[in-house]
Amino acid sequence: MNRNKIKLGVFGFGCVGEGLFDVLENNLGFKAEILKICVKNKEKKRRVNGGRITYDKKDILDNPDINVIVEVIDNAKDAYEIVVEALSKGKAVVSANKKMIAENLPELLLLQDKYNTPLLYEAACCASIPLVRNFEEYYDNDLLNSFSGIMNGTTNYILTEIFTNNKTYQEALSLAQSKGYVERNPALDLEGYDSKYKLTILLTHAFGVTVKPDEIFNTGIGRLNNFDSKFAFERKCKIKLIARAQKLNSGGIAAFVMPELVNETNELYAVDDVFNGIVTESSFADKNIFIGKGAGAFPTASAVLSDISALSYNYRYEYKKKNQIANGFIDNNFFVDVYVRSADPAIIDVNAFEEIYERYYSKEDNYLTGKINFDKLIKSGWVNDSEVNIILLNNKITML
Amino acid sequence: MNRNKIKLGVFGFGCVGEGLFDVLENNLGFKAEILKICVKNKEKKRRVNGGRITYDKKDILDNPDINVIVEVIDNAKDAYEIVVEALSKGKAVVSANKKMIAENLPELLLLQDKYNTPLLYEAACCASIPLVRNFEEYYDNDLLNSFSGIMNGTTNYILTEIFTNNKTYQEALSLAQSKGYVERNPALDLEGYDSKYKLTILLTHAFGVTVKPDEIFNTGIGRLNNFDSKFAFERKCKIKLIARAQKLNSGGIAAFVMPELVNETNELYAVDDVFNGIVTESSFADKNIFIGKGAGAFPTASAVLSDISALSYNYRYEYKKKNQIANGFIDNNFFVDVYVRSADPAIIDVNAFEEIYERYYSKEDNYLTGKINFDKLIKSGWVNDSEVNIILLNNKITML
Repeated sequence: MNRNKIKLGVFGFGCVGEGLFDVLENNLGFKAEILKICVKNKEKKRRVNGGRITYDKKDILDNPDINVIVEVIDNAKDAYEIVVEALSKGKAVVSANKKMIAENLPELLLLQDKYNTPLLYEAACCASIPLVRNFEEYYDNDLLNSFSGIMNGTTNYILTEIFTNNKTYQEALSLAQSKGYVERNPALDLEGYDSKYKLTILLTHAFGVTVKPDEIFNTGIGRLNNFDSKFAFERKCKIKLIARAQKLNSGGIAAFVMPELVNETNELYAVDDVFNGIVTESSFADKNIFIGKGAGAFPTASAVLSDISALSYNYRYEYKKKNQIANGFIDNNFFVDVYVRSADPAIIDVNAFEEIYERYYSKEDNYLTGKINFDKLIKSGWVNDSEVNIILLNNKITML
Repeated sequence: MNRNKIKLGVFGFGCVGEGLFDVLENNLGFKAEILKICVKNKEKKRRVNGGRITYDKKDILDNPDINVIVEVIDNAKDAYEIVVEALSKGKAVVSANKKMIAENLPELLLLQDKYNTPLLYEAACCASIPLVRNFEEYYDNDLLNSFSGIMNGTTNYILTEIFTNNKTYQEALSLAQSKGYVERNPALDLEGYDSKYKLTILLTHAFGVTVKPDEIFNTGIGRLNNFDSKFAFERKCKIKLIARAQKLNSGGIAAFVMPELVNETNELYAVDDVFNGIVTESSFADKNIFIGKGAGAFPTASAVLSDISALSYNYRYEYKKKNQIANGFIDNNFFVDVYVRSADPAIIDVNAFEEIYERYYSKEDNYLTGKINFDKLIKSGWVNDSEVNIILLNNKITML
């Protein structure tokens, strides 16, 4: 295998960009040279020598010596513009921007085809855990039935503080914020959007289903209170925020992000703190579990570098599942077991439920548990009511 | 990426061979055709049509239409002969035979080079868990410091029966035997040889160190008694059989297979039953954990098929670490914390220990715990005494 020489142009020199720089400097293995780094802020002191820094994206995009673009900036819109221009100029791209990729995947597939130029994004899906390439290569030959997991480190840190260190939600959230774990827009983490972007990307590689993030339901842990935590504690469970995708008999795919009760026999029970964990279930390999750090400068940079290295031998995603599975679609017509807590029980329409398991009323708070059609659940008036909290009782997705 | 057409010749039609056949038949993804299957036993009824079955290896090795050989027979010596002949004839090989590969790795590296023909063996290292390729590709760019794990499902099943289901060692062993989990030569599983073969192979891909299995110390769970289990129970630990490799300051690598106490904060604590689990620690990606079924017809066949698929785009191991790390070697000059149980305490030379932590005498049995130089431990007279059992107290490898 002969390897191509890689000459890099990097957009962004925040913590991931700096991490990549350090990883490349300390790397015994594959070597790649950074020719230019494009940054926005002219005032900020940089750790690299001035000649490599530029403020003009043309210095990278129009530089004939640069053959690979690394895009590690925050802004999804700017990132998309850079990627489009780079691909159109035949420059391979490595990106860690989950939001940008998830929201533009159909277009990004077409652009890769049109310009016959690859875009890799291992770092966008749980950073240091090698997921995208294993989904592409390893499960190509197996009948993948489902994958699910903890795909957001911030919420997992918060939930660990609650369930392992007995903090309240507010205390845990403050702690996460003081450590710089929470995005500028907290809803991205707390309400499951970040997890959903990763889920959206992996759906393409796992099941050949490419949809916009908007088509996938997500709810998070922002409404978790002490009453909910107690409910979980009493059942010897933790609550984890899980992104889940599962093949249905209909030929469609169930896909969503929701908090879920997990007991100690669950593979994700012990995946705590900022770690991410993904469980795959397939007909032949059976269950595989991947655990690792899903964020942070170095874990992200190491995933970026593994993509750069792969480009040196002309690797590209083949999106094989898109050819194998003709008519994949998101299907919300299945049943889940839920816990629904609400200060005013009257606002929960019990007729929406297939079966009620328990009802509990108290001065403190009220809940019901039961089986409900997922489509009814997500279209219900109360699913987004700030006075209501919904948690899955288990990981079962059933058809009637 | 254009894919080569793969025409297979398969040696062996035992449970893995049949598994592969089923996986290929049910596979939506990559297609490969089995032209011939070579078996030994002429009496046995086969599930495939007669034209494809042969009893003469030449029908495969001299068949110009066959470009990939799959070798899934038991006998390591016969397997090696087949692999050598196949490579010399320019036919790529996929093997699941950990013993054959571990014992002949230096020769197999040379043969691949000499005939410019690849040999892949993902299935030989923990079957369904994608380890070899992730070690080759993903950690190519990261400074891997250590890897360790449960690499044998049979002993893990036995230990789970003891520590989760309160069985005695004898009861658990009988149960494993009744389920067909134990190799014809039980020492292969019980004394850690099977784990050691996998460790030996992974050492090449992780650290570029290629040694014969004989150079690596292994001990297993064959001498575990109720007294030992009680010792672990009282400390809220389980015992797991762990294969471990870790970089030392000397530039050498510590590598061994030994039973080890693990408490519930350990990533491997919850890896039970026939599951395998591997933990990697690297400077940038930090900790990654891979869990899955390490044996069985389908998990093994799915790994074999992932190799066949990789051959269709000319994938081969580059053994990159062998170029990166010039003088890797196995170094036994480090310290470990051990529990040593013996009916006769007089046979344990306490002067061999750097430090004694505890001594316990009773009518039932006796033990001591302490810190010892690993080289002294493995050269001690009592390490292989059937009346003595040795268990690591923790996963720490220290230099003085």
